[in-house]
This record gives sequence, C-alpha cells and structure tokens, in this order.
Amino acid sequence: MKKKPHILITNDDGILAPGIKHLWSALREIAEITVVAPLLEQSAAGLSITIRSPLRLESLDWPEGIKVWGVSGTPTDCVKLGLSVVVETRPDLIVSGINRGTNAGRNVLYSGTVAGVIEGVMNDIPGIAFSCSDFTHPDYQTAEKHIPKIVEYVLAHPLSKGTLLNVNFPSKDHTTIKGLKLTRQGKERWIENPDKRLHPMEGHTYYWLGAKIVECDEHEDSDISWLKKGYIAAVPVHVGELTDHLHLRERKIHFEQFMN
Amino acid sequence: MKKKPHILITNDDGILAPGIKHLWSALREIAEITVVAPLLEQSAAGLSITIRSPLRLESLDWPEGIKVWGVSGTPTDCVKLGLSVVVETRPDLIVSGINRGTNAGRNVLYSGTVAGVIEGVMNDIPGIAFSCSDFTHPDYQTAEKHIPKIVEYVLAHPLSKGTLLNVNFPSKDHTTIKGLKLTRQGKERWIENPDKRLHPMEGHTYYWLGAKIVECDEHEDSDISWLKKGYIAAVPVHVGELTDHLHLRERKIHFEQFMN
Repeated sequence: MKKKPHILITNDDGILAPGIKHLWSALREIAEITVVAPLLEQSAAGLSITIRSPLRLESLDWPEGIKVWGVSGTPTDCVKLGLSVVVETRPDLIVSGINRGTNAGRNVLYSGTVAGVIEGVMNDIPGIAFSCSDFTHPDYQTAEKHIPKIVEYVLAHPLSKGTLLNVNFPSKDHTTIKGLKLTRQGKERWIENPDKRLHPMEGHTYYWLGAKIVECDEHEDSDISWLKKGYIAAVPVHVGELTDHLHLRERKIHFEQFMN
Repeated sequence: MKKKPHILITNDDGILAPGIKHLWSALREIAEITVVAPLLEQSAAGLSITIRSPLRLESLDWPEGIKVWGVSGTPTDCVKLGLSVVVETRPDLIVSGINRGTNAGRNVLYSGTVAGVIEGVMNDIPGIAFSCSDFTHPDYQTAEKHIPKIVEYVLAHPLSKGTLLNVNFPSKDHTTIKGLKLTRQGKERWIENPDKRLHPMEGHTYYWLGAKIVECDEHEDSDISWLKKGYIAAVPVHVGELTDHLHLRERKIHFEQFMN
C-alpha cells in the first residue's frame, strides 16, 4: 500500500474555528495529518512572527481522540514551531484554512491564512490556502467536498518552487459550484475604514482601523471575476524571488552611474 | 521655487528608535515630512494589521518643535492611519527605516520596515525601505549621507507600479562604501531557532522562537553578494500582481479538466 502523504494543517481563525475542522475532515482519509494552529484568532496577521515574547505550545484534544497543537502566536509561528518542534517527519504539503472570508485579489499578503502557506514555501514545502469568500455565511461543507481533489492534484502535479496555490470558494449566493478555474490574481482588496471613538472612561480618542472592499476593474480571467460567476478560483501565487527584473534591466546602469 | 515633495516616514523599530531620526535628518532639507511610526517596536510584523483591538494615535514632540505621530500598532497600521487620518495631502513617497538589521534576501515579506512601504505600493504610492545590515553596530550616519541622493533618483525616475525599492547598507566592517548596486534579491533569510525553557513560577514549557541566518549559494549579482563586498544594495521588489503566469499557462487546461 502506498504511504499516505503527511500534511501540516494550520489557519488564522484559530484552533477553535469551525473551518479548520472541516479542512481536517476533508483530508483525514487521504493523509497523515498534523494540526498546529493559533490558540487565538490571527486574521490579518500577514507573515508576522512573534520575536518579542515567548510562545506557548499546547496539546489539545479534538473529538475521537485527535491530538492537535495550539500556539499562542501567529500562523507563521505555528508553521515554524510545527516544523522545528512538533513534526517528526517533514510534511509533504502545508494546507491552511478553511478561512472565514475572502483571501482573493490583492489580500494575499495581509492574510494570516496565506501566510502559513508562505512560510512553508520559504522552506520549500508546497502549500495550499483555502478560503470561503463569504464571511457572513461561509459554506464550509461545500468547500470540504472539493478540497480532496484539489489537494490530490497538487500532490500529483507539484507547484513551481516559490509558488503556492491560493484557493477561494464562491459565496453561498451560488447554489451550485460551476467548476474550478486556475486563474490570475485580481486587484480587489480590503482597505482601512477608520472609525474614531472616545474611550468611555478616560475620554481619549481611539480608532478602529476598520475595513472596506475596494472594487476594481478586473480582468475577466481573474479570481475576483470567476468567484462572482460561481466558480472556485485557484491562483498560483509566487512568493519566491520578487525582483522586478524588467525595472532592474531598464534602470541598472543609469541608477548606478547616477550614484557612483 | 519648485514645491518640495511630501514624504511619509515610518519604521518598525518604533518612534523612539535612532534610525528614524537619522532618516528624518537625511530628508528634512529636500522634503515636507510627515512621521507616523509605531509607539512600540514592531520588528518582524510583516504586513500585519490590527483589527481585533482599537489603535491609539498620539502626537509627540521631537526636538526643535518637530511634531510626529505614534501609533499603538504595526507599520502597516501606521501607513493606513497616516494616509486616512493624519495627512492632508497625499504623499509623493513613503520611506521606511532606517532599520536596525538586515532586510536583504528573502526577509522582505517578514519585515515590518518593508511592510510600511508595501502598504504604500498597495495604494499606488511609491516607496523605499532603508536598512543597515549590521544589527550590532548599525552605521546610521553613513546611511544618512547616501539617502538623499537615492530618494532624489527615485522621485525623478519613478518605480514601476507595484514595485518598491529595498535598500540595505553594508556592515561597518567595510570602512568605506564602495558604491551602490541596483541588483536582484538574494536567497539568504532568517529562520527560527527555538529555545525551550521552563516558566520560573508555573513550571510550564515555553519557547523563544529565536532566529538564525540561513546562508545560501547566492547569484554574484544579488543584494547579499554586493553587501558582503561593501556596496549598498538596492533591489526593486515587486509586490503587485503575484500570479505565477508560467505555472498558470502550463497547468490551466490540465487542472481545470481534472476538476470539472
């Protein structure tokens, strides 16, 4: 019998969030699984690392005697401690989610969900981030049904070095999923929407940073466009070498002569 | 008389760190400056955003009556509140640093210093991140001398949309700077180096995540290689659309047929 792949699961909504249990359910038959996730929600954690305070690593029990690990830090911390302290064998894949809310468009670098997978890619371990676009009514059940086949494909057809797969599921307005599109990253993103308030006791001003979506003109073959049409959108996102080689070629001699 | 450019300054070492004052000194003659920086150190904050707690925005006085702003959050929070609450006119440039310690190689996405500039690029404002490679003996004075000319060049010769300039200064071992190289991103990066300890009162285990540098075989024309030779290394880093278009072309039809 072929050995099952070893998959490290993490998320940014925290070890208690429903999405991570659906992700585990989706993969439990096809993989050996290690779960290492934040003890507290870490949405919008980006690729932040906890270096100014120590981290707790707690063993927790899920139903059916499943042992999982909680970390008092970010998704990136989880993958770092997961790889260096928890696992005995190197995972074949890191899978993150299922996130409550979209990580499509330009939101990938802010996302804690995607960050867990970026940390894997930095260690040459391929990864997939899964998110439900719909924050209010995330349909984890439907996502769970499609996840095994997506994971199976990626395991059989490796991603390029430095590249992860960012998968978003369409909102529940679409009663049936129309299919999956491998597509490009759209432009839509969350921006701040500050709300100025007064502290109830001290009277000082404070701000909730807030968030609102900036809609953009989107390429028709982009994750944002396909999600609106009811498709699962999967984007190969490159986070390896990020040099703008075109700018480098155009400006190298000119800039260096100006400076030197 | 030509109107001076408006520059927003931030950092991740915090509003009290010496590096940000050197950055301000470098630019005070050539620009109108707004300073919005974290009240507390935010190294390795990545592009994290504070959404689960409110933010304080404090007005502080530097010597000579200079008014600056401190935010109880991350560099990304600083740029978000800076742009939406503090400034009256949109900055022409966002400049971050001068960081204590390297942000060369693959460290850019972990860096809070670079994150402040990424947040600008997300808003189509160009940016430059400045870091001293040498954490133990950061030579801010030397960096300060070279910064005006680098900023002048970038203002006169705009970066491509979605691209920032990541500038690292060589360590103090090099008594004189040999020049500046516009170059590609190297591979070297910080990884975790966990240190397991026991809580002095409760006896439980905790971990300091720790950090150590992973040295790699580097391209001779890379930031890591040039820094070692005593050059300032400037890398145009693209953080706009991150689609791996090669993978997309190669796999699109095959993956979609497999799934649908």
